[in-house]
Amino acid sequence: MGMYEPHTKEISRRNLLRGSALTALGFAAAGIAGYTIANMDDDGSPTANGDVPGQSVGPEPEGEVTTARSAELPPLGVSPLDLTYRIQDVTVDIAAGVKYNAWAYDGLLPGPALHVKQGDQVNFTLVNDSATGHSIDFHSARTPWDKNYITIVPGDSLSFGWKAEFPGVFMYHCGTPPVLHHIGNGMYGAAVVDPDPPLAPAKEYVLVQSEFYAKEGANGTWDADVDKMLAVRPDLLAFNGTAFQYRDVPLTAEVGEKVRIYVMNAGPTLFSAFHVIGAIFDVVYVDGNPRNPLYGVSTYTVAPGQGCTFELTVPEAGLYPFVTHSFAYTGLGALGVLAVGGATGAAEH
Amino acid sequence: MGMYEPHTKEISRRNLLRGSALTALGFAAAGIAGYTIANMDDDGSPTANGDVPGQSVGPEPEGEVTTARSAELPPLGVSPLDLTYRIQDVTVDIAAGVKYNAWAYDGLLPGPALHVKQGDQVNFTLVNDSATGHSIDFHSARTPWDKNYITIVPGDSLSFGWKAEFPGVFMYHCGTPPVLHHIGNGMYGAAVVDPDPPLAPAKEYVLVQSEFYAKEGANGTWDADVDKMLAVRPDLLAFNGTAFQYRDVPLTAEVGEKVRIYVMNAGPTLFSAFHVIGAIFDVVYVDGNPRNPLYGVSTYTVAPGQGCTFELTVPEAGLYPFVTHSFAYTGLGALGVLAVGGATGAAEH
Amino acid sequence: MGMYEPHTKEISRRNLLRGSALTALGFAAAGIAGYTIANMDDDGSPTANGDVPGQSVGPEPEGEVTTARSAELPPLGVSPLDLTYRIQDVTVDIAAGVKYNAWAYDGLLPGPALHVKQGDQVNFTLVNDSATGHSIDFHSARTPWDKNYITIVPGDSLSFGWKAEFPGVFMYHCGTPPVLHHIGNGMYGAAVVDPDPPLAPAKEYVLVQSEFYAKEGANGTWDADVDKMLAVRPDLLAFNGTAFQYRDVPLTAEVGEKVRIYVMNAGPTLFSAFHVIGAIFDVVYVDGNPRNPLYGVSTYTVAPGQGCTFELTVPEAGLYPFVTHSFAYTGLGALGVLAVGGATGAAEH
Repeated sequence: MGMYEPHTKEISRRNLLRGSALTALGFAAAGIAGYTIANMDDDGSPTANGDVPGQSVGPEPEGEVTTARSAELPPLGVSPLDLTYRIQDVTVDIAAGVKYNAWAYDGLLPGPALHVKQGDQVNFTLVNDSATGHSIDFHSARTPWDKNYITIVPGDSLSFGWKAEFPGVFMYHCGTPPVLHHIGNGMYGAAVVDPDPPLAPAKEYVLVQSEFYAKEGANGTWDADVDKMLAVRPDLLAFNGTAFQYRDVPLTAEVGEKVRIYVMNAGPTLFSAFHVIGAIFDVVYVDGNPRNPLYGVSTYTVAPGQGCTFELTVPEAGLYPFVTHSFAYTGLGALGVLAVGGATGAAEH
Repeated sequence: MGMYEPHTKEISRRNLLRGSALTALGFAAAGIAGYTIANMDDDGSPTANGDVPGQSVGPEPEGEVTTARSAELPPLGVSPLDLTYRIQDVTVDIAAGVKYNAWAYDGLLPGPALHVKQGDQVNFTLVNDSATGHSIDFHSARTPWDKNYITIVPGDSLSFGWKAEFPGVFMYHCGTPPVLHHIGNGMYGAAVVDPDPPLAPAKEYVLVQSEFYAKEGANGTWDADVDKMLAVRPDLLAFNGTAFQYRDVPLTAEVGEKVRIYVMNAGPTLFSAFHVIGAIFDVVYVDGNPRNPLYGVSTYTVAPGQGCTFELTVPEAGLYPFVTHSFAYTGLGALGVLAVGGATGAAEH
Repeated sequence: MGMYEPHTKEISRRNLLRGSALTALGFAAAGIAGYTIANMDDDGSPTANGDVPGQSVGPEPEGEVTTARSAELPPLGVSPLDLTYRIQDVTVDIAAGVKYNAWAYDGLLPGPALHVKQGDQVNFTLVNDSATGHSIDFHSARTPWDKNYITIVPGDSLSFGWKAEFPGVFMYHCGTPPVLHHIGNGMYGAAVVDPDPPLAPAKEYVLVQSEFYAKEGANGTWDADVDKMLAVRPDLLAFNGTAFQYRDVPLTAEVGEKVRIYVMNAGPTLFSAFHVIGAIFDVVYVDGNPRNPLYGVSTYTVAPGQGCTFELTVPEAGLYPFVTHSFAYTGLGALGVLAVGGATGAAEH
């Protein structure tokens, strides 16, 4: 069968979603898995992302992931909150079968999702267990760059306090130059600051969108490729650090339940056009601040370094993929699924 | 004369606009036509868009178009609205003299502009008369992706209903993977959902901005070039499917008349910075929802997959070009003209 | 020491900021100066921006600038305001040691910052002292493109009046085709129109972000590279025309003082994600119009051709860098520093 042989309505939804029938049915049959378009061009030439003259060939996902990182908003902490992040050099899966050598807060890529409320005090300590100098910059804080966002050497630590004055969705990241490299290598996370009074109860998720730029490293692993970062030629994109993980292990919600997604775009460079297929956002709070509502939105720009809050309610059970709608990049991994009302990939319709 | 020999105030406005004096006067004399900068570099080297190592040479417009697709908002339909789109493989002009082999809803690129009002019911049928599997995703609807946005084989059809719950400007598009290829090959259109109560009467236009990425096909036609799509190296951009068509055949309005432009950015990848030269938007409704007004705006970001409503009133007769102000792309065709008060390219001032 | 040898807390803040210890300590020690990442890749290959096959090698800053252009909002003019801009061919420093052959309004790149108030009348005259045809387009005006934004030949002049009807931050620029080339070669500036009633008193700055695309010219100077413009491969970015100038000579404010930054993104192509490190914007006025407030914002998209007003108050003395948070481009020069409360690069903490 040819590349664009269509699949049919009779195909198992699970196959559509999971791509497990990819070989038998070709790309079109792969459903969302077909977003993995690394070899899709029909003239036999390599893809633009993997074989640009002067650029290294990048990684491609190998199949599916079987477990995904929790995207649930963690519970609120106490105030004052004593918080320590240890920077570690780790090798993590940025896609199925793709091991990447990252710099990471607490060994996580992205770093831990932080959840506080407006007015809370955070007593923060950064410990550098890495082999390289690093720092941290909380967009949720107001504090001098030259005092608290400075670089610390391996083995050193740094403590400072900050107050969560503004509600919203904020990036934190390493600000050690070259910042492009430090963000690009995994040093970012999201901080959600609840407004006072708080928003209505909801099913709450945190999604951090980011790009990966990679070249071959040792023992089958991948390293940061700064040339590709500068040229804005990403190999992979991800929500919460692993390409396609929520396609393979969907997020869930109930029919009629208010779902609130805190989207933070870590970049380092691309703008996101966040969208949920089959849904419309009842409200988007720009920067996550309830004073900045937009109503009835299908797609909204989230700048690199920005966070926004997206609320939706789904009236019918089913699968609702979420993406960046800037489609040259969607197929690199910025795609997941919200499964509503018990819908699964295996459900037949 | 050299390349940048200026034109003068005495040049016919028609020539400025139409570029019909292009050969005699050089690029600068071509006025807006000079946006067609395919050969403009002054060292004799080919342009970056046409001759990148490893990439095919792309199409360039040949002269002007003589007819343009109507951009007028079609009249409201009845409710419930029985609507059928037939997907067809067609060859269309994406610029003057550039024939492109597209996949298209009802054979149109973009597909038909849909106009309903908040609360309307749409009973929709998709018929696949194409040789390839396709689907449809209405951003204006709330319905499960895995139920109604599935791919149907050639010869098959699919029916589902949806209600226009949210007012605004919405994209519809094929969601069959690789979605980048299906959108990039022409499968998109705009749906305008009037709010209840409706906006004030106005002269209403629909503009769909999109990108084309092409390689040589059979018999002088052009085909989708997915490598260029992945590399975000467009050859042409267009409003309503044909580069520069409203430069050659302007839209019209009266002096003092309220003009409402529904702008939908189909992408597949680029963000638009919509602007009308010589005018200021009285109001921009983000996503086309009257609850999201911005006032006194010169330029506004429209994400790929987003639509926004732009209102303006022009106090003086004349020509008012509209563009994406992201200028590496404007000259590829995302440029038209609003002629106000009977102004024409031939008018002398 | 290796490339990523960290600097320590003990390093002079001045060194961190100024990069004067760059040679001794390596990139990581260079602090913000390390954003100049032209040679930073660790495998010895040239950078993506400087050595793409088929593209010319671009300029790199040589050290620091010692003086910076004033970014202060100029005082309000009278109304009616008689205003003349003379277009001149000039060679200007677009980075330390990088001389660029520009087309410029009044010989300035960007052109003079214009400051008027809502309702003011501007009686404008453009004089072309350049060797090339040029024009001007004020986004702050409503006037026909074909009447007042036309190209005039060298030695010619053009006069027209316009009224500042809408408050905000607006671009002005040359609209002579190819517009990409004319904007890319330096022909732009910002106009700030105060609302009526005016905003509260503040320390007010104007920042024009723009990109430069260059190839080698005569006598060690640089010329516009239109191929790179078309390919969106900038060599440098700048605030107010010179890369990194406000890193080297920071802007200043007092602790607790309201700071208002009028940001205009001239492009020609890239979107900006404006952010101040260590601060949060109390309010962003979209397009600079007080009717469009957003509250508590960390990062906001400014489209090419758009201006926005950003207000912040800094509660603690220190250094607060401002950037586009689209980090592939930040290190090319879109980085400055706001020094608050007398903080200097030399201050120890």
